[in-house]
Amino acid sequence: MKLVTYCAKGEQSKKKLGVWVQGWVIDLVQASLVFCPAEKFLVQEMEELLAAGPEGLQWAEKVTKKVLKYMEEIAGEKELLASLPEKILFREEKIDFLPPLTRPGKIICIGLNYYDHCEEQKAKIPVSPIIFAKFNSALCATKQPVIRPSITSQLDYEAELAVIIGKKGRNIQRQEAPKFMAGYTIMNDVTARDIQRRDRQWVRSKTFDTFAPLGPFLVTADEIVDPQNLYIRCWVNGALRQNSSTAQMIFSLNYLITFISQVVTLLPGDIIATGTPAGGGAFCEPPVYLEPGDVMRIEIEKIGVLENYVVDERS
Amino acid sequence: MKLVTYCAKGEQSKKKLGVWVQGWVIDLVQASLVFCPAEKFLVQEMEELLAAGPEGLQWAEKVTKKVLKYMEEIAGEKELLASLPEKILFREEKIDFLPPLTRPGKIICIGLNYYDHCEEQKAKIPVSPIIFAKFNSALCATKQPVIRPSITSQLDYEAELAVIIGKKGRNIQRQEAPKFMAGYTIMNDVTARDIQRRDRQWVRSKTFDTFAPLGPFLVTADEIVDPQNLYIRCWVNGALRQNSSTAQMIFSLNYLITFISQVVTLLPGDIIATGTPAGGGAFCEPPVYLEPGDVMRIEIEKIGVLENYVVDERS
Repeated sequence: MKLVTYCAKGEQSKKKLGVWVQGWVIDLVQASLVFCPAEKFLVQEMEELLAAGPEGLQWAEKVTKKVLKYMEEIAGEKELLASLPEKILFREEKIDFLPPLTRPGKIICIGLNYYDHCEEQKAKIPVSPIIFAKFNSALCATKQPVIRPSITSQLDYEAELAVIIGKKGRNIQRQEAPKFMAGYTIMNDVTARDIQRRDRQWVRSKTFDTFAPLGPFLVTADEIVDPQNLYIRCWVNGALRQNSSTAQMIFSLNYLITFISQVVTLLPGDIIATGTPAGGGAFCEPPVYLEPGDVMRIEIEKIGVLENYVVDERS
Repeated sequence: MKLVTYCAKGEQSKKKLGVWVQGWVIDLVQASLVFCPAEKFLVQEMEELLAAGPEGLQWAEKVTKKVLKYMEEIAGEKELLASLPEKILFREEKIDFLPPLTRPGKIICIGLNYYDHCEEQKAKIPVSPIIFAKFNSALCATKQPVIRPSITSQLDYEAELAVIIGKKGRNIQRQEAPKFMAGYTIMNDVTARDIQRRDRQWVRSKTFDTFAPLGPFLVTADEIVDPQNLYIRCWVNGALRQNSSTAQMIFSLNYLITFISQVVTLLPGDIIATGTPAGGGAFCEPPVYLEPGDVMRIEIEKIGVLENYVVDERS
């Protein structure tokens, strides 16, 4: 399943929970009320859905199947489709995506986690994962602007696979780690390089408002057979800049979950952004940074496409 | 006012909102229902209280005054006191404090922000504030254990004044900053020094579970005439280790709020931990680190006392 958080165009404060199917968005709450009227389980937000564990995902699946069955039966019959109660089904063009999670408990980020990214900057391979953080206020959705602060002139992108935690855990064993992943999405770890170098601590340069584009889908773990073998790419204005594979990760998802859970209690909805491969703007020769109007397009195999454009804070 | 989040002994999952007055804790919800039955405003959690803005604080003040008036009238009359409806008033010994905020939107921490702390380690005075982060899972309450992870042998304390944000803001002007502070509390910025040195990024070494003791009170801003002139002290097992003043801060609270709000949108409930003065265990000669059984006691003038003890993860 491809779970989404979305809203009616322009109504960002009214978050809704949905499932994306081939260009359509099914509203889970409305669909459940109409197609599964006897169903007792009902949640309004992705955070709640994940906190509910397997019951939450089973509910989403059940509701989705009912709607798809109905759509199959009425395929081509425009009138019947039009008769679907309002607020159940939308073409994706008619809605705005929001970040799949808007108030996660943690956004845990990993630095220098791809072999090719270490190579390009002649950095030593880390002996253990490097952890930093973003604040929730940095989250933004696909198709939304990334705001270039007036105090940086070196804005950069970083394509990353993000893991969404589905189950509470501490000191998780490596072989148990997959059970704690609810699914995957894409994060763009936007960074102000000049500030990153100056501060040395990375948090500020990576947590400006809008510096964490996330989404569009939370792809449930069952859809991804091997998360360590997905291509990951990033284009800027159509030019391919990052072109790698999650096979290039130094510390695997399982390793990261074990490592991080020795530090913190992981909770449903926590996000782990797992590092970026080679090809950031800072590592081009000469370096090339993002300008207002630039479009960043990140694609990860089977996970989706996350696209954002840059605007100037002063504009 | 000294606002608190508390619970019945051992019932940490049932958070309650209260006001502390000279050893008593008034339950705001129960007291409001009994003493202000016509009152329409009612919130259950500190996060909601702060989000409500001035209306929230006015409600808390109104309810508190009613209870205090009642207590004044019955002073000495044990029977009348005993007739107070249950669940309104408790001796502080009868409840457990929780961190005043248990799910803040952000825990923003500032490094190297006291002149005496820079001096003791011969560090350059930073030209701008150094920002790092803790995750909410690190929060713990006064009197609760700080757990020493098995992977560190250099556990250390850091007494800090923490500011609680009361109002949404971005790009806040210096002279406007005080309007955005709802109040103050104490944070112990517990740190694993060996991991801090090894990682260079500070987040991991400072965000282990229980590494952010917070509280016990959220002291509202009106009670503190000059937050830049408060003594700040920390004892370990009764021996005075840190003994300084918030006048030693390099970047004032107003400066920090201006600076941080150029990066992120500040929201009600966000916490800013403003750095620690000289006297950490790592800077003693020879260095001395925390051991199981050690008791850390932090006192900040007019803000309160935050006390925690150390236990071993393996114990």
